[in-house]
Amino acid sequence: MVQPIRPFEEIRILLAALPGPNQEAAAAARARDRLLTKPPGALGRLEEIVEWLAAWQGRAAPAIERPLVAVFAANHGVVAQGVSAFPASVTQQMVANFLAGGAAINQICKSHGIGLKVYELALERPTADFTQAPAMDEREAAATFAYGMEAVEGDIDLLAPGEMGIGNTTSAAAIYAALYGGPASRWTGRGTGLDDDGLARKNAAIDAALALHGPYLADPLEILRRLGGREIAAMMGAIAAARLNRIPVVLDGYVACAAAALLHAIAPDTIANCLAGHVSAEGAHGEVLARLGKRPLLDLDMRLGEGSGAALAIGVVQAALACHRDMATFESAGVSEKSK
Amino acid sequence: MVQPIRPFEEIRILLAALPGPNQEAAAAARARDRLLTKPPGALGRLEEIVEWLAAWQGRAAPAIERPLVAVFAANHGVVAQGVSAFPASVTQQMVANFLAGGAAINQICKSHGIGLKVYELALERPTADFTQAPAMDEREAAATFAYGMEAVEGDIDLLAPGEMGIGNTTSAAAIYAALYGGPASRWTGRGTGLDDDGLARKNAAIDAALALHGPYLADPLEILRRLGGREIAAMMGAIAAARLNRIPVVLDGYVACAAAALLHAIAPDTIANCLAGHVSAEGAHGEVLARLGKRPLLDLDMRLGEGSGAALAIGVVQAALACHRDMATFESAGVSEKSK
Repeated sequence: MVQPIRPFEEIRILLAALPGPNQEAAAAARARDRLLTKPPGALGRLEEIVEWLAAWQGRAAPAIERPLVAVFAANHGVVAQGVSAFPASVTQQMVANFLAGGAAINQICKSHGIGLKVYELALERPTADFTQAPAMDEREAAATFAYGMEAVEGDIDLLAPGEMGIGNTTSAAAIYAALYGGPASRWTGRGTGLDDDGLARKNAAIDAALALHGPYLADPLEILRRLGGREIAAMMGAIAAARLNRIPVVLDGYVACAAAALLHAIAPDTIANCLAGHVSAEGAHGEVLARLGKRPLLDLDMRLGEGSGAALAIGVVQAALACHRDMATFESAGVSEKSK
Repeated sequence: MVQPIRPFEEIRILLAALPGPNQEAAAAARARDRLLTKPPGALGRLEEIVEWLAAWQGRAAPAIERPLVAVFAANHGVVAQGVSAFPASVTQQMVANFLAGGAAINQICKSHGIGLKVYELALERPTADFTQAPAMDEREAAATFAYGMEAVEGDIDLLAPGEMGIGNTTSAAAIYAALYGGPASRWTGRGTGLDDDGLARKNAAIDAALALHGPYLADPLEILRRLGGREIAAMMGAIAAARLNRIPVVLDGYVACAAAALLHAIAPDTIANCLAGHVSAEGAHGEVLARLGKRPLLDLDMRLGEGSGAALAIGVVQAALACHRDMATFESAGVSEKSK
């Protein structure tokens, strides 16, 4: 296959032509809501969720038959700087755990009837240590974005991109610092459980990377290739492909939102089809969500990744849709409406 | 059957002898959590939930096989004061809707595999208008409490008491004002959708009741019988019976918490087995939860009642338990532990 000569330019062109929401579908869902046997507004955010599903699936009667959590796993050269409490070998071990059904995300998906797929991104070949050089070259970053797009296939109707990668909260924090301003310590957290020395190494690695790559960080796609991990590139592609295929997206936490933040920095509308599933206990995720204009559905002090917070939120989305789809109307149930 | 001569005294004796948490079971659940393939603490409140289940079910390996939402329906004499946007006949109509499977609570329970039972509390005979007289006499309040206790039967392992009753946010607000201090406007909301005039009538009715019953409101059981509805008495009994039977309780919103608040006012420990499922958009529910020492699991702007917020929260509780029960351990999955 011939690689495009300017791959980032192709991504920019793609992202400039995403389909918008279907306002008629959202209005129809809103109109049905007003007929259901409950006071208007009494289901709160559950009502908003259904309008969001209708708008971004593009149908007045939205459906969730095949929700999917797509977990992208990658390894990071920056772990050489001692930025994680766990060894890099754990990424591969956790992929095996996902495939064997033993991780948290497996149980949450099973609990809510959500499909789960796991994508390994060249785990044997970590990205370059971004304190020394760009993590990826442009071609690799774009190819990984394209790989993430291809993961959105079949007739799924709701997507939550998740991730696994020892060291990837360091990459995400570096991206936030590059997008929103440093220093590193403003954005970092303890990840999988760093002690004080580890956190100092993490901050130092990010600050060194910001100094090294500084002149090139005005462009979000340059930030991606210099500071990003492959899972972040793939999640960006998955979110974009979902938008192209009219699949609403539920965002997970601290690392998954780095993909959303890069898309948002290219153009805020790019993530208009995304609902924030939860706010993480990791780092400054709450501030990131505020910058993205997203109010999280859940706030449960989680900081695991894997798509776990988004998968829990999908349980709420499913219940919201069940109410909308299956509740009786005032007329059908013979319930008196509000006195005038 | 001979009625006890001092029925409230019997309730007080019962509530003074409730079983405590099983700390060994909670410790065993905590110990297992530390073996699971995730960083310690990374599942946040999901980990707390499992410890709570273990402590109050009294077993190291808690289970949720038969969760139940028990909806108690009652009518309120105070609706004569024009305090609701809907006519009183809607209580009975909504009971029919529950039984036909058409209400929001039916869909949420179905979505999460939760059982649902509905209990009618003499709908044809509303309580007395508490702006004129006590809503109930002592014998009736105690008998309704006992009826609520009897609803907790069979081998259910998680309970969410819910309610339906046109006018019952007025009763709940009156109870909060009596417990925590007035005026009414500090505690009231628009219920099912009151306009400004309706809200003024609601506040006036509560303030009139506080003036009428004021000298008798130092005793929570007197507050119950004077200002309460039957569904509030029954939910108090259900919560107490759950405690006696080692069944953890998930609290619903604004009205359900009036039952919890009365129990808490008798003795704070009485509701130690209760988890706040959500914070309602109705009235000052957030302040009520703070007074009860409960941090809500969900905050979704809901204000429907029926047990709907608690039922949604049970979806999170189920996922928390699934993680704890079915995740692999570091050892079984061959995942490396944190570097020392």
